[in-house]
Amino acid sequence: MSDRGERQGRRGGGRVARRAAREAATEMGRAPFLTRSLAPYEVISEEGLATIEANADTILERVGVEIVDYPEALDIFREGGAEVEGTRVRFPRGLCRSLITQHAPSSFSQLARNESRSVTIGGPHLVFAPVYGAPFVRDLEGGRRYATYEDFENLVKLTYLSPNLHHSGGTVCEPVDVPVEERHLDMVYAHMRLSDKPFMGSVTNPDRARDTVDMARILFGPATVESRIVLLSLINANSPLSWDSAMLGSARAYAEAGQAVIITPFILAGAMSPVTPAATATQTLAEAMTGMAFCQMVRPGAPVVFGSFASSISMQSGAPTFGTPEPALVLFTVAALARRLGVPFRSGGTLTAAKVPDAQAAYEAALTLYPTLLGGVNFVLHAAGWLEGGLVAGYEKFVLDDDQLGAAQSLLSGVDLSVNGLALDAIVGNTPGKHYLDSPHTLKNYTTAFWVSSLASNSSFEQWRDEGSLDAVTRANTVWKARLAGYEPPPIDDAVDAELKEFIGRRRSEIAAERDLA
Amino acid sequence: MSDRGERQGRRGGGRVARRAAREAATEMGRAPFLTRSLAPYEVISEEGLATIEANADTILERVGVEIVDYPEALDIFREGGAEVEGTRVRFPRGLCRSLITQHAPSSFSQLARNESRSVTIGGPHLVFAPVYGAPFVRDLEGGRRYATYEDFENLVKLTYLSPNLHHSGGTVCEPVDVPVEERHLDMVYAHMRLSDKPFMGSVTNPDRARDTVDMARILFGPATVESRIVLLSLINANSPLSWDSAMLGSARAYAEAGQAVIITPFILAGAMSPVTPAATATQTLAEAMTGMAFCQMVRPGAPVVFGSFASSISMQSGAPTFGTPEPALVLFTVAALARRLGVPFRSGGTLTAAKVPDAQAAYEAALTLYPTLLGGVNFVLHAAGWLEGGLVAGYEKFVLDDDQLGAAQSLLSGVDLSVNGLALDAIVGNTPGKHYLDSPHTLKNYTTAFWVSSLASNSSFEQWRDEGSLDAVTRANTVWKARLAGYEPPPIDDAVDAELKEFIGRRRSEIAAERDLA
Repeated sequence: MSDRGERQGRRGGGRVARRAAREAATEMGRAPFLTRSLAPYEVISEEGLATIEANADTILERVGVEIVDYPEALDIFREGGAEVEGTRVRFPRGLCRSLITQHAPSSFSQLARNESRSVTIGGPHLVFAPVYGAPFVRDLEGGRRYATYEDFENLVKLTYLSPNLHHSGGTVCEPVDVPVEERHLDMVYAHMRLSDKPFMGSVTNPDRARDTVDMARILFGPATVESRIVLLSLINANSPLSWDSAMLGSARAYAEAGQAVIITPFILAGAMSPVTPAATATQTLAEAMTGMAFCQMVRPGAPVVFGSFASSISMQSGAPTFGTPEPALVLFTVAALARRLGVPFRSGGTLTAAKVPDAQAAYEAALTLYPTLLGGVNFVLHAAGWLEGGLVAGYEKFVLDDDQLGAAQSLLSGVDLSVNGLALDAIVGNTPGKHYLDSPHTLKNYTTAFWVSSLASNSSFEQWRDEGSLDAVTRANTVWKARLAGYEPPPIDDAVDAELKEFIGRRRSEIAAERDLA
Repeated sequence: MSDRGERQGRRGGGRVARRAAREAATEMGRAPFLTRSLAPYEVISEEGLATIEANADTILERVGVEIVDYPEALDIFREGGAEVEGTRVRFPRGLCRSLITQHAPSSFSQLARNESRSVTIGGPHLVFAPVYGAPFVRDLEGGRRYATYEDFENLVKLTYLSPNLHHSGGTVCEPVDVPVEERHLDMVYAHMRLSDKPFMGSVTNPDRARDTVDMARILFGPATVESRIVLLSLINANSPLSWDSAMLGSARAYAEAGQAVIITPFILAGAMSPVTPAATATQTLAEAMTGMAFCQMVRPGAPVVFGSFASSISMQSGAPTFGTPEPALVLFTVAALARRLGVPFRSGGTLTAAKVPDAQAAYEAALTLYPTLLGGVNFVLHAAGWLEGGLVAGYEKFVLDDDQLGAAQSLLSGVDLSVNGLALDAIVGNTPGKHYLDSPHTLKNYTTAFWVSSLASNSSFEQWRDEGSLDAVTRANTVWKARLAGYEPPPIDDAVDAELKEFIGRRRSEIAAERDLA
């Protein structure tokens, strides 16, 4: 009996100790970004990829890209070696590729104001950032409504509080209660003040990009902004094969300041590209190369990320669809093209067309996330919170996605084939039919053994029922409220904060004056 | 104007024609099973796999397997070359592997009574079967309740009606309103009468397995059962390293009849194996090899499928968890081991611990399904309907999963690199900024271009709201009811049906007599 008593005692105390040890291990082992051991999944041979690259060169040679309302860009392209005819820019075969491979870094670090939260973008690393660009928000009680600055702050806070999101993102939602001309100032300030993770800058026009850089100079100091990458911003092409002055002008402003941009063809295949994955990947490569090459023409060595956003559409209604197989094939293909080009790659997320965070939302999100993980993506925008084709940032969806992101490192670490991982002695030392719960190998490894969701219900039906039969969305609702209630801002130097506020006030006045003149 | 009028006319009529063409293309192109072009995803090197194989041999040599209450099996193992000591069976290195590689087919066809629905199991092929073994069912109105024979019939009907499920499965739920001694007769009859897809036999004891074979002889004719594979049944090991007479005796009955079995170690890692993926894969290989070798000892050439069911557990509560990264790593690893052994592989599904078909259920299901698709699984049990760790077969969950299975072939077909797939002319012939909706390439390909869910809402928020703001589960509820309402049984020869009923009646009497004697 003493043996049993001792075992029971060890177990009872063990449960508490185990939990504490597990939590400590979880927090201690938490890196500011993920690192993959698994090789990316390849869906096309090297020969197939070379064919796509040759076709992209043919497109750039024969069609090129159209530059809308941006004569200065035409000069930059001409001086960079492209052939300019009117507003059309064509590229000698290999020009874009050689500019990128010669100058653009294959990987770079984006500094965070809390330096321990700086992220490496590229190589075997993976960085998660939240939803971007949603004009609406949704939560369980409030339903769907226009996003406000309070929502913007809430999403920045929730991202700051998540150990699974490495990056504060950019336009986490559109704060439509702030005038559009000065909105960028408030958004950038929220990232700087409410979080200490790396963040993205404004891209809605070049002046706003320059405001972002100026604010970064206040936050980090001008010397740091000169020598380090502190901003990563999102530049979308107007597919097919077209660039506008807002996007290309913002790219130029950031490149001039030595700051990083993500060059992303945003493609609803069937509408903005042909309906096939290979063609969509080819066009994505062509378009992205022109944007990345443009940045190298502006400033050789400017850090760029090769981005790809591709969804399919319903050929009946034209509506975009998400979590479908064809965009996954595009992702796997373009990721391989980015590796061959030697630049970091952005794609994926937890995308869905669902209006509410229901089974459709989760199925589609997961079927976007898994290719993201296996494809070798380096930077994942829209990793949490996306609903309704990106029109809505969902609070509960944010929590549901965030929870699943926590599993990624365990997958990407692959199979441990060390002596401890193989555990041959544990199996040989065990008796057939006997469980492993108190095996020495189990006791040595249980704290780090399995990823367990903090949101999923794994309990018995009876326990779940007695706890109120709560579904995942209801549980998620409790989580985000509790997190926001416990939020405390990271410390900031008062003088820096005052200077940021002064800058914003001055720019607000200048913008108002410009608006009055117009 | 005539040009525009003509175009509009073509478009209006085109919508209907397009839909009809798409549906025709979908149905016509529907194979009775899937075929993969994509290579399976490999997470371990050949060297690592060889290490695991060597360790499995060490386990079989030093520990072996325990045979519970089945002396005849000990004789079979002894005669087959194993070393028997009491109830323990140990294996010389390489014995199991050589029996399997020498005799077991690498791929086989399971005949369906509608021959066009026969499935090939193995090689590049993939077969989906529904949930198995749930004592409870759940639907939106009725909630959770014990399963009945009516539920069993409903799930067989829904599987029959799905173009995405290739196989009728076996114990799709436990019809607890039928006495357990004769339940197998009613279950097998339902598969035979209500569907014409291939199905699984009873395994709860050897007599019931023999009843299944006898009924198959009535349905297919004795000569066909002698020469063809018409049954595929599920044999689970008692992990770790133990077999009982019900399972091994059923395996023997099927092997003697030349019928196929799936040999599946069912492992909650951490409880029935060490906590690491490599160790769980090693133990799975060791256990599965003993069962598959046993079948070869019974009848050389007996068709076997290497099965693996592995989930992780919460080390806090001991509760099984699903859709987590570690079981995915086990799946990828064991799939590679099965390929090296040259036998078909069963694993995966749409598993979840969720009690209701909510976002948790879909997230976990999708995160089981994607490794299933990329890992190279050949037979997928629990591909639709699984809830609550397998305790519940869910009607709405069934429809939600089934819908997603429809996407699998588009993924597995990979990237089309034909001239049509590359579509270089379409891109070069297009004007920058102009959409592709009416491009000749689009018009040629739209019917087969993208997989589109029949259940997902891809419409605008306003349209979705005006249609009642229905979530995925509510939509799924409508679908299964409509399908059941439209169900018509496939034709059967009246004499065969009468003979089946006569057999069942006779066996019921015999079983009742045995029960009265006991």
